[in-house]
Amino acid sequence: MHDSIVGKALERDELELEVTDFRQYSTDKHGNVDDYPFGGGAGMLLQAQPIFDAMAATQAKATASGHEKGRVILMDPAGVPFTQRVAEDFAKEDHLTFICGHYEGYDERIRSLVTDEVSMGDYILTGGELPAMVMIDAISRLLPGVLGNQESAPGDSFSTGLLEYPQYTRPADFRGMKVPDVLISGNHQKIDDWREMQSLKRTLLRRPDLLDQLTLTGDQKRLLRDIQIELDESDNQ
Amino acid sequence: MHDSIVGKALERDELELEVTDFRQYSTDKHGNVDDYPFGGGAGMLLQAQPIFDAMAATQAKATASGHEKGRVILMDPAGVPFTQRVAEDFAKEDHLTFICGHYEGYDERIRSLVTDEVSMGDYILTGGELPAMVMIDAISRLLPGVLGNQESAPGDSFSTGLLEYPQYTRPADFRGMKVPDVLISGNHQKIDDWREMQSLKRTLLRRPDLLDQLTLTGDQKRLLRDIQIELDESDNQ
Repeated sequence: MHDSIVGKALERDELELEVTDFRQYSTDKHGNVDDYPFGGGAGMLLQAQPIFDAMAATQAKATASGHEKGRVILMDPAGVPFTQRVAEDFAKEDHLTFICGHYEGYDERIRSLVTDEVSMGDYILTGGELPAMVMIDAISRLLPGVLGNQESAPGDSFSTGLLEYPQYTRPADFRGMKVPDVLISGNHQKIDDWREMQSLKRTLLRRPDLLDQLTLTGDQKRLLRDIQIELDESDNQ
Repeated sequence: MHDSIVGKALERDELELEVTDFRQYSTDKHGNVDDYPFGGGAGMLLQAQPIFDAMAATQAKATASGHEKGRVILMDPAGVPFTQRVAEDFAKEDHLTFICGHYEGYDERIRSLVTDEVSMGDYILTGGELPAMVMIDAISRLLPGVLGNQESAPGDSFSTGLLEYPQYTRPADFRGMKVPDVLISGNHQKIDDWREMQSLKRTLLRRPDLLDQLTLTGDQKRLLRDIQIELDESDNQ
């Protein structure tokens, strides 16, 4: 029984997931997959051989079951940052392979197997499994049928290019904290205007870089000028 | 038995982790924790009540066992981007609480409980659990004793501010792909110089924004000029 959206998608066969343990492909007599770096330095590196052989096996299996070899993704801090655009791009593919290690680093020659190097962000993790799970989650929810409510994807942050407006659900008064009047006014034009204004304001205050990437409408530009004037006035008080 | 670094740290009591199911705090007769947004729109929102009451309970428990209430972190695309600096900052704390939802969004009033809103990146996930796990992983590995090999943290990407240089392990010749001669030269000064040059080159090519955030040494600046000249020449060929 799966509670998660990806778990349910797996049960409904909207998605297939296969995990390969590359340790099983080690030809080392002790089954090791890591070794010291040439030239010295701390930590161990993942060796080329187990990854090359595990990859050959999974690619052969994919081909045998009618899938493309597809793109091969390495989690790496030097990769392109993972964004919603990257997720949308990967969601169009028939077959993806993620290489995840649990080591200080990879033997450089492993990169020759890879079509895409992707970074989850400017932070260091103990391994590549969690970021692979994050990517699989972001990509899976874009596949047909995976999100039950097809309407729910477009309103999210980043799909509009703006941060989301504040949202409220019942009760209208929670321990003295009230929902803004406009949202219970029943006036849909006013509600839409308020939400647009709040989205623009939050984006301007928190992520002005997102605005630079958008082609704003004339209305949005006017709203942004109003917000800027309002903010300047409150600064001067 | 835990294979993961965080799992081992939990076993050794270097870290405590407690999971609270806020559904158990719902006062709704059906145990619901979500409801429709005021003002209309697709999707459901996480209600304030279960989160407020779950938070009060966990904070009381933390206080009873001698912990600070500590910082309360909301995963939100509108938050500050999670980076290594943020991880280092959180790693200094005695107690952290992560709020993770599985919903379209949160009732805005939940933000009043929160000290930090953090974004894992510009992409959309089905829930907040995976990004919380990623953050817990990045923070935990910075705690004393968690990484067995204390030397291994500083060389990583981002702790020096530069991307990591290419690394190689045995064999020196893997299926015709050879390790650069310098790394098997035994000349440690040459190896260090080569690595510095490679780190700078990779950072310049892939993440020039990281260079802007660094105070480069005179040597690094000279190396960067050499790399730039080399790149310009190869462009002109």
